[in-house]
Amino acid sequence: MFRDFKWSKTEKEIARKAFESAYHKECGVITARLRNMIARASEPSDIWRIHDYLSKQRRETDQKYDYRYSVLPMVFARLIREGWMTENDLRGLGEEKLGVIKSFLSL
Amino acid sequence: MFRDFKWSKTEKEIARKAFESAYHKECGVITARLRNMIARASEPSDIWRIHDYLSKQRRETDQKYDYRYSVLPMVFARLIREGWMTENDLRGLGEEKLGVIKSFLSL
Repeated sequence: MFRDFKWSKTEKEIARKAFESAYHKECGVITARLRNMIARASEPSDIWRIHDYLSKQRRETDQKYDYRYSVLPMVFARLIREGWMTENDLRGLGEEKLGVIKSFLSL
Repeated sequence: MFRDFKWSKTEKEIARKAFESAYHKECGVITARLRNMIARASEPSDIWRIHDYLSKQRRETDQKYDYRYSVLPMVFARLIREGWMTENDLRGLGEEKLGVIKSFLSL
């Protein structure tokens, strides 16, 4: 069961790096969208629309970026599917982990 | 009791105009601060700091900008004290209302 996989020190480093990189990439897109929204803001309601947008993004990223080894293969599959990382970023992980990620991707 | 004041049509127009103008002024300051924060944002944590800031401002302005005639003199006194409007903006309101606002201001 993938929830019980053992992660070596090297695997943890690879996982953490890929995870952080995806998180920064997604937050970069949120920031760009935010800059765009704020540049066009003119009415008070525009501010609260920005607030609604950030509330939604925060809720979603908090839920999505869950760095528990027991769920990481699922998280990685989702991040690959959404384009925040590629399988290449995970090179070096054990075959059993890559296999589970691939199986999630093919769902 | 000021909660039972009658507001004429003209008074309501003066009150609404002063209220909206103060709200737009305060939201303009929030927007300016927001632009400043986003211009300096570089880390994901900066985005969530912006979100925290907006959550606080939204809570505070929602609570502060309460357009019920029963509380309006109190609201106006607070807005004057905080610099979002002046007594001048309320010229045309009945003496009884201006008196109550002044008495709140002197508290």
